[in-house]
Amino acid sequence: MARRSGRTKRSINAIAQLEWRKLTNPYGPIKVLDDEQVQTIIDSALGILETSGMRFLEPGSRTRLAGAGADVDEESMMVRFDRSLVMEQLALAPASFELRARNPARHLTLGDSHLLAKSAIGDSHLLTKESVGDSHLSAQDAIGDCHLMGVGDCPLNFASVGGPAFVSDLDKGRRPGTYAEMCDYLRLVQSLNIIHQEGGGPFEAMDLPAETRHLDLYLAQHRLTDKNCQSYALGGVRARDSIEMACIALGVDRDALLETAALLAIINTNSPMQLDIPMTEAVDELAAAGQVCCITPFTLAGSMSPATLAGTLVQQTAEVLAVVTYAQIVKPGARVMYGSFASNVDMRSGSPALGTPEYTKCALASGQIARKLGLPFRSSNTTMSNCNDAQAAYESQMSLWGSVMGGAHLVNHAAGWLEGGLTASFEKLIIDAEMLQMMAEYLRPIELSDDELALDAIAEVGPGGHHFGTAHTLQRYESAFYAPIISSRENFESWQEAGSKDAAARANAIWKQMLKDYEQPPLDAAIDEALVDYVERRKQEIK
Amino acid sequence: MARRSGRTKRSINAIAQLEWRKLTNPYGPIKVLDDEQVQTIIDSALGILETSGMRFLEPGSRTRLAGAGADVDEESMMVRFDRSLVMEQLALAPASFELRARNPARHLTLGDSHLLAKSAIGDSHLLTKESVGDSHLSAQDAIGDCHLMGVGDCPLNFASVGGPAFVSDLDKGRRPGTYAEMCDYLRLVQSLNIIHQEGGGPFEAMDLPAETRHLDLYLAQHRLTDKNCQSYALGGVRARDSIEMACIALGVDRDALLETAALLAIINTNSPMQLDIPMTEAVDELAAAGQVCCITPFTLAGSMSPATLAGTLVQQTAEVLAVVTYAQIVKPGARVMYGSFASNVDMRSGSPALGTPEYTKCALASGQIARKLGLPFRSSNTTMSNCNDAQAAYESQMSLWGSVMGGAHLVNHAAGWLEGGLTASFEKLIIDAEMLQMMAEYLRPIELSDDELALDAIAEVGPGGHHFGTAHTLQRYESAFYAPIISSRENFESWQEAGSKDAAARANAIWKQMLKDYEQPPLDAAIDEALVDYVERRKQEIK
Repeated sequence: MARRSGRTKRSINAIAQLEWRKLTNPYGPIKVLDDEQVQTIIDSALGILETSGMRFLEPGSRTRLAGAGADVDEESMMVRFDRSLVMEQLALAPASFELRARNPARHLTLGDSHLLAKSAIGDSHLLTKESVGDSHLSAQDAIGDCHLMGVGDCPLNFASVGGPAFVSDLDKGRRPGTYAEMCDYLRLVQSLNIIHQEGGGPFEAMDLPAETRHLDLYLAQHRLTDKNCQSYALGGVRARDSIEMACIALGVDRDALLETAALLAIINTNSPMQLDIPMTEAVDELAAAGQVCCITPFTLAGSMSPATLAGTLVQQTAEVLAVVTYAQIVKPGARVMYGSFASNVDMRSGSPALGTPEYTKCALASGQIARKLGLPFRSSNTTMSNCNDAQAAYESQMSLWGSVMGGAHLVNHAAGWLEGGLTASFEKLIIDAEMLQMMAEYLRPIELSDDELALDAIAEVGPGGHHFGTAHTLQRYESAFYAPIISSRENFESWQEAGSKDAAARANAIWKQMLKDYEQPPLDAAIDEALVDYVERRKQEIK
Repeated sequence: MARRSGRTKRSINAIAQLEWRKLTNPYGPIKVLDDEQVQTIIDSALGILETSGMRFLEPGSRTRLAGAGADVDEESMMVRFDRSLVMEQLALAPASFELRARNPARHLTLGDSHLLAKSAIGDSHLLTKESVGDSHLSAQDAIGDCHLMGVGDCPLNFASVGGPAFVSDLDKGRRPGTYAEMCDYLRLVQSLNIIHQEGGGPFEAMDLPAETRHLDLYLAQHRLTDKNCQSYALGGVRARDSIEMACIALGVDRDALLETAALLAIINTNSPMQLDIPMTEAVDELAAAGQVCCITPFTLAGSMSPATLAGTLVQQTAEVLAVVTYAQIVKPGARVMYGSFASNVDMRSGSPALGTPEYTKCALASGQIARKLGLPFRSSNTTMSNCNDAQAAYESQMSLWGSVMGGAHLVNHAAGWLEGGLTASFEKLIIDAEMLQMMAEYLRPIELSDDELALDAIAEVGPGGHHFGTAHTLQRYESAFYAPIISSRENFESWQEAGSKDAAARANAIWKQMLKDYEQPPLDAAIDEALVDYVERRKQEIK
């Protein structure tokens, strides 16, 4: 049964789960736009950058952009871009790259070698990557990073929730979180094999000072997990610290990080059409160091973007392209991603609406746009629900299907997000992990060998018989089908006798067991000490 | 705002919901098999029918099959089919047909005019529909039924749950249901615009005698709804009564029903590879009367079919083709569907597992097989959950995405099913309706008019502004985005103050309100009387 060997085995801890593996999506993406419509959105975005432009609040960024040929109005801080400038810079952006993890088995691939052909985007005067090609980063990526991918397969990575203000669980409810609780959350992120990347801190550790909290987060990331971890890139200081600590943790210098990135940070634009100073600083630090800027406008249709999906996609694309252009000017060949968080507001209340059908359509359309631009694509798993109920699950599913079948290379907040991102839930982390595992199994193609076609088994059992206990079935007993973490298949009476526990209650038991079974991944003592020294020194400096 | 006029308006009752409309899926289906693999499955199924065959328990069916050239072994009751016989009969089956409803605005289209080209299935000696073409039913369908469909759009119909033994709600829990409760359920099925078809009785009315219960069901269907309703086709008597009562309710004779069908019944094979007597009788009655046989093997991989998806798909296809062949022999041109319920058992417990990734893949693959065979395709919305929790929602979503993106023309049990089909839940009916509405909105393509691209609005608002209150937004205030039935978008504090209600609790309030607001669709008094007379007479006869 070698062919199924990666399936539903017990891991080092006692909870049955899928083994760690890199995922790829073998199925073609769902297309909600035709090619001409994709082009219309891109052309419209380029038109906006030419005529209205984007506001860059950080003065140095405007100087850089002016130097590269953009039209800068210092008074309004508006920057206008010729489409030829945008396309020249876009052509420098690699279509694929790897991310290092402390454990080499957990390196990640983001993007797709098929995306490299950028020449078909449209205007005949646009430069192709080949004709520009002055970036050692993109040249390396074009030949190096994608050798592990099968033809037609799209790499897919799931990141845990990042950024909430609160934490919640069924025992203590929703509350500001502590560092100890955050460390527990990171232990679970490490333990869940279906999570490929830690999302930059699951929630704020409110018992620590805000100015230095990021240092404690980075220390916990490197100690408690051996997976790739996102940077918390609010401002240049936090970005720089993440780079320095990644170098220490990985035992490499900045040149090595330039070769292969170790960090990815979410760069949110201040939609509509603005980039603030902290985010600009983070782009400066990360791009210069060869790390990944995942550029994600925060476009809720009806408030931060027009109350239409087409308009929202145009604006999102304009904002991404403006920051992509800037990142390439900072460092030719800078690693960037096309991030989409496009959703809508509830028009009755003005509050955000997430996991909506609009979200799904925007994710699918954004994937099409990102592929056309030749950029790796990021989407998310979102919900507005305030508890782990049916709504939390169906909104997450709507998001996940849009993300996965939109060809996302990174699904951010893939596990743990609740309350529109205000809360990281311990139970949602487990429920999402179940949903992600189901997605991973869905992405495993049906096999059609003679043994799988089972014609002999069908003939052997015959009409009215059953396949329990046949040799063909017994051979597959342990690994034939997906074995869930929390899904119940008990009949009603057994379920009732066992306390009528719903999925959230079962998830509560699972994360507690998983915490008990957690084993900290080994870290060289000298590295640990160096990390601690760095944190101590920086805390003194910041104080 | 004519373009959005079908959107989220208040209906006659007080609950905001989408207006009734026929749905089509404009997006291409997800393909999990390549063309060669689809052909391999069909060839393997034809091979099974040639070498092992299918057991037909009803003696008359064997006589008919022998008369048509099948190889019948009376002792084993096994029937073997040459593939040329199967393909000849398959060619007679229409690729599309309409179903009448009591309200002409609620007529349904099942199938797809694109499916008509059956000539490419494989063997060169196979006959095409054109070269057989002796059926007035299929000829009519080829020109008549599909004129309303846009090119590339796949008609999609949602049916309410049919067949459970129990009913449940949050107030009284899970219990055997009464006729009065069943009537309430039918009232909700009528009230929910997103449900296109009633599913043949939501649960058994246990306070009525089993032998005549179907008559009371049919009476309630015709009185309480004006939608198309499925037949409860367990045996010839129940099928015949459904046809007679449909004639009365619609005010037509059997010739008219032969022209355009009014009834669809689920014909379950007794997997593996057997058709029992009640189901055969139902096929006899329905096919002869021109009504739709939705042929659905009950193949749970690992028990009723091999413990592999490929083997399960082969067996499912063999069973469908055997019954399709039989139905065409009963009545050339008989309206049939390719039904899939393929899932797996939980290998640890032997219990069914539904809404699994395996279910999703089988639904997508079955859609590919059905299209290749030129048959309308049925799938389902399934879950094993015993309550309306996150599991119920994510398993339903996995099923729905497989069904919808598999190109299903009918999603059976689309709303209300719980506990692996043992229970019809009042709350699940509402939660599913929400999910179905979200699917319907997902299937509404993104528009790219100048007004939707909103370039002027983007320029007008400018950087750092917001789109609340702009003319462009206000124009779309009421109808821009999907307005949910039960999904909460309150912030945590408001939600908590309102009682921390989860989706199931909110659904409980909705169905009660909807029952209060229910209005019975008008039915001609003479027709009502004739229906009552028929029921009374038949009860006397059956007693």
